Amino acid sequence: MTPAQAARLTIREGRHTGSTRGLAPGFVQCNLVVLDRSLAYDFLVYCQRNQKACPVLEVTDPGDPEPRQLAPGADLRTDLPRYAVYRNGRREADRTDIRDFWTPDSVAFLIGSGMTWDLALERAGVPTDRHRWVLRTTIPTRPAGLLHGSLVATMRWLTPAQAIVAIGVSGRFPRNHGAPIHVGDPGAIGADLHNPLFGGRVPDLPSGLIPVFWACGVTPQEAALAGRLPLMITHAPGHAFVSDLEADRLSNL
Amino acid sequence: MTPAQAARLTIREGRHTGSTRGLAPGFVQCNLVVLDRSLAYDFLVYCQRNQKACPVLEVTDPGDPEPRQLAPGADLRTDLPRYAVYRNGRREADRTDIRDFWTPDSVAFLIGSGMTWDLALERAGVPTDRHRWVLRTTIPTRPAGLLHGSLVATMRWLTPAQAIVAIGVSGRFPRNHGAPIHVGDPGAIGADLHNPLFGGRVPDLPSGLIPVFWACGVTPQEAALAGRLPLMITHAPGHAFVSDLEADRLSNL
Repeated sequence: MTPAQAARLTIREGRHTGSTRGLAPGFVQCNLVVLDRSLAYDFLVYCQRNQKACPVLEVTDPGDPEPRQLAPGADLRTDLPRYAVYRNGRREADRTDIRDFWTPDSVAFLIGSGMTWDLALERAGVPTDRHRWVLRTTIPTRPAGLLHGSLVATMRWLTPAQAIVAIGVSGRFPRNHGAPIHVGDPGAIGADLHNPLFGGRVPDLPSGLIPVFWACGVTPQEAALAGRLPLMITHAPGHAFVSDLEADRLSNL
Repeated sequence: MTPAQAARLTIREGRHTGSTRGLAPGFVQCNLVVLDRSLAYDFLVYCQRNQKACPVLEVTDPGDPEPRQLAPGADLRTDLPRYAVYRNGRREADRTDIRDFWTPDSVAFLIGSGMTWDLALERAGVPTDRHRWVLRTTIPTRPAGLLHGSLVATMRWLTPAQAIVAIGVSGRFPRNHGAPIHVGDPGAIGADLHNPLFGGRVPDLPSGLIPVFWACGVTPQEAALAGRLPLMITHAPGHAFVSDLEADRLSNL
């Protein structure tokens, strides 16, 4: 059993319910979006039009909860530690299992997560365990159907030397957000430091660090919320799907 | 006016009806597929599942013939020199204009073409004007809906030194087929040397050259034909869409 398979098993059996951060290092982690097939085309076009934020790694057939390409044998209804449920753009109580919501018309999208790089960054000497937030920006995305909104970004605070290394390392993952979209002044992209979506309160920037911003896989979720889709299920922030794909092999896809 | 805009204008006005090979060097050329929106989702999922062969660079809104991202102001019904029309999997007479076929439900897909690299290869000292074919292989693709079939590959014959350079150069274009899928024995991937789809008869391999194979953007056309879609319109082989996107900026998408 690989570390990814072992991680999914502990999750499926309810023995791991927390964040997937640091689980099965080196394996690609994915954001999950589940929609009715009637909404799936617009969602997929939205992802194509904003592919730096929305790198779709797998689309399941309607009704099939198994990601046959990225993790044969897995079940997307049970193998994530926590799910967020949104109706008409409002978040309901989280779930640890979504079998009750699954229908023959359910389609699942797996989207590359920035957590995938963490091991590659660590190996290159860039710490990933702090100074990391998910923020709304004012950069518009290209709409599709009901989906619209602004780009969501991951901000990391790094030293200039770390920033240069991180830009190079992330650029090696073009199918998984790739190189940053911005470096320096958060105001230049309208980054909302006051209401982070993830990562807690943003303190004052310590001297000697520089903000670096990457397109974030939460962007399509925000667009689906803005479009008030009747029902959307996603991973809860930080509680992603651990796939069998090794990050070092992403470019083989 | 850029070289790409000038090229499209001569095509629209009927002054250029031949291949787009060598037109507007350095600008991304795209394969075209036009389908009814009822078939568009399956087609897009097929492309996602086989993205090395099918890098979708733009999807237009139903009924809109303008590729607003890759070439604002262009018209996909008139701005390609020659179109192929397929009904139920059979090719009809080519057209130079598809306005008669366009409906409010028509959706156009622009898919990266290997011709895009030619300038980058030439600059790196790899000739691109000969020893190039498009061939069927026996490598299966991942099906979606009605679409299924085998991978189509572009084969180039290169010296070993050129092959090494070409592998490196094409790897810099992960959104446009990227690095090769195979090098060496054509039999290992079931490449059909006897019935090339493009490039004329394949002679005996001259000594000192090695075959190198890339996933080809004709793959989704072949899958749509195998699925006997009621109506599909594509560029005629070698007669692609010249976009405003510079190949050197492909990774900015």
